[in-house]
Amino acid sequence: MSIRGATAVVGVGESEYYKHGRSPDPEFVLVMKAILAAAADAGVDPRTIDGFVSYANDRNTAMRVSNALGVNELRWATMQWGGGGAGASGAVQQAAAAVAAGFAETVVVYRGLSQGEFGRFGLMRTRHPNDSLRFAYGMSTPIQKFAARMNRYFYETGLDPATQRAVSMASYFHAQSNPRAVMKGRPLTVEQYEESRWIVEPWRLYDCCQENDGAAALIVTSAARAKDLRQRPAYILGAAMGGGHRSSAYSESVYDSTDFPTAEFKTLAPRLYGMAQVGPEDVDVVQAYENFTGGVVMALIEMGFCTPEEAGEVLTLENLTVPTGRLPLNTSGGNMAEAYIHGLELNVEAVRQIRGQSFNQVEDVEISLVCSGPMVTPASAMILGSEESL
Amino acid sequence: MSIRGATAVVGVGESEYYKHGRSPDPEFVLVMKAILAAAADAGVDPRTIDGFVSYANDRNTAMRVSNALGVNELRWATMQWGGGGAGASGAVQQAAAAVAAGFAETVVVYRGLSQGEFGRFGLMRTRHPNDSLRFAYGMSTPIQKFAARMNRYFYETGLDPATQRAVSMASYFHAQSNPRAVMKGRPLTVEQYEESRWIVEPWRLYDCCQENDGAAALIVTSAARAKDLRQRPAYILGAAMGGGHRSSAYSESVYDSTDFPTAEFKTLAPRLYGMAQVGPEDVDVVQAYENFTGGVVMALIEMGFCTPEEAGEVLTLENLTVPTGRLPLNTSGGNMAEAYIHGLELNVEAVRQIRGQSFNQVEDVEISLVCSGPMVTPASAMILGSEESL
Repeated sequence: MSIRGATAVVGVGESEYYKHGRSPDPEFVLVMKAILAAAADAGVDPRTIDGFVSYANDRNTAMRVSNALGVNELRWATMQWGGGGAGASGAVQQAAAAVAAGFAETVVVYRGLSQGEFGRFGLMRTRHPNDSLRFAYGMSTPIQKFAARMNRYFYETGLDPATQRAVSMASYFHAQSNPRAVMKGRPLTVEQYEESRWIVEPWRLYDCCQENDGAAALIVTSAARAKDLRQRPAYILGAAMGGGHRSSAYSESVYDSTDFPTAEFKTLAPRLYGMAQVGPEDVDVVQAYENFTGGVVMALIEMGFCTPEEAGEVLTLENLTVPTGRLPLNTSGGNMAEAYIHGLELNVEAVRQIRGQSFNQVEDVEISLVCSGPMVTPASAMILGSEESL
Repeated sequence: MSIRGATAVVGVGESEYYKHGRSPDPEFVLVMKAILAAAADAGVDPRTIDGFVSYANDRNTAMRVSNALGVNELRWATMQWGGGGAGASGAVQQAAAAVAAGFAETVVVYRGLSQGEFGRFGLMRTRHPNDSLRFAYGMSTPIQKFAARMNRYFYETGLDPATQRAVSMASYFHAQSNPRAVMKGRPLTVEQYEESRWIVEPWRLYDCCQENDGAAALIVTSAARAKDLRQRPAYILGAAMGGGHRSSAYSESVYDSTDFPTAEFKTLAPRLYGMAQVGPEDVDVVQAYENFTGGVVMALIEMGFCTPEEAGEVLTLENLTVPTGRLPLNTSGGNMAEAYIHGLELNVEAVRQIRGQSFNQVEDVEISLVCSGPMVTPASAMILGSEESL
């Protein structure tokens, strides 16, 4: 069988988004709100959802969620393996695999965070013996680890640092039109960016994602059933997760890849494009997970939108923003300026672009790309297509 | 597409099996030994394995394992959601979904435990606020929770308790011919069983699974590729995971199912048989996860082998044992007498029966059933078939 176009995202939903620790609801309630919103959006009875997928060791297990929804029958309950948001599109891919194989019919992918309830995500902690090799040098948090990669990347490629600023400003620009965006009403200027403090070089405050509370959800079903539901289907043309030889998992702290400065999309990109039967030139709009701006730049380069040498000319604020940009990026405001729901909200926005429902809508979108979690293995990415793309 | 026969298990492997805490190897080494054995068994280069699946919050992540194997490219990394061994066949199902959808080509399913290294599995602990509702009454460990279900089942059905003894004795009987079995050389008599102490009524010492160290692995690939490999393929005719309405997850401690005394196979069984296009009458040999003997009895009843009323006549030691039994059960010795590798070893034995390689081989096996983890959601089960079954 070909997976291309066999399944579709038919519903999306989200809770309110908050600054971290500010949610009045427990995490489980946020998740339920997002799932119920996605079911209503699709026009499916939530009790008929039969599959549940999340990632990053989600605390809101399929069993609790399915019980609370009163589902008739649970048929699929899986989790994408890995730490942060790298698995967001991989979780959607798992839903697609379950539906395509006939193991489930209506699968919800979800992610919720309420950090006032459970504590902040990404704090320094030891999970693996290798951690001690880094901790002894004060290298503990995600940004410290990823910055090492990014600095090496700058050293090897001579990448223009202004590309990082353009990524950040594009997110803040788009957030100003998005009522869900936590950073709506707080536009970012060149001066504010340049004057913001270093967190870990080469990254300033505005190179970093937010920390947020909230939840998002997507519902996947077969293409055949999608046609009868409420929304214009966002067909899954391709999806891929993984990493290259000896690729580095953040949560494992291995970092001994033979190809150290990579966003982990090098092996994934040709697989993804091959499956979807499109190339980067066909992509109308991109959502790319911003843990830190540099990861987005690396991801866009590895996904074939430009070389490191061309990046300074291609990845400009003008090119990255609607309505006139050639490569509209993170059109909801993304992790940086909408909300950091571990990147699942980027997958939601990719769907909205196919439907024509974004607050920063790109015209006539046929191909919508989302890249989840650069510099982490397994990274993942997905290509959605409109009816016309099939 | 039909998933029936689209994929096959082509390799199986295991480490040595030990009493818990007795492994001379760390858990990760046990896992590597099992995977390398499975790859050698299949005749595939371990570096070409591109998918990794486990369950029960396995500590040996896809990223560490794939790095250590030196795989060329990681393409699939997922985990079955849920607590104990209920997900063992569900993990194989995930591998089948990935292969059938074209997301990966050669997927290994594995599970390892080294309890001297990491502490015993299944000890009393709080993971969910609901736990406090039980802990206040001294109800904490798995056996206490499952016994409540089993006692209710006896009360409602009048099941013959001798069926539990037959399940236990069948496992010990088969283990005597299996050099891998930890209980080889320690046969069980009726007297030993009846005189053994109560752990939690209705379960005596010999109604309980062992606790062991060890690892097992299975390799899944497409049916097309399976034909070119070293072993006779065990085709995956069907696989299913899940639970019914408000079904109870052990790890969630909910237990508020509207159908309380169930092994969680009632909704799963018709789905599984329908997918595989066989019925219980076609099954030649069964592996059924024994956390506690009563769970096996409930599973066999829900899988359609007999009614509770018939169980006393059908589930006898004679019927459950090779070479003459009508319903050969746990032919390796199972969790009770081979080793408790969270039930993955039962999936390995189900494959060996298709190949004709069991130490307690049933003649001319075409259909081999394995049921993983009764009384836990998501439970899972799988039907394997020989070439003749296609």
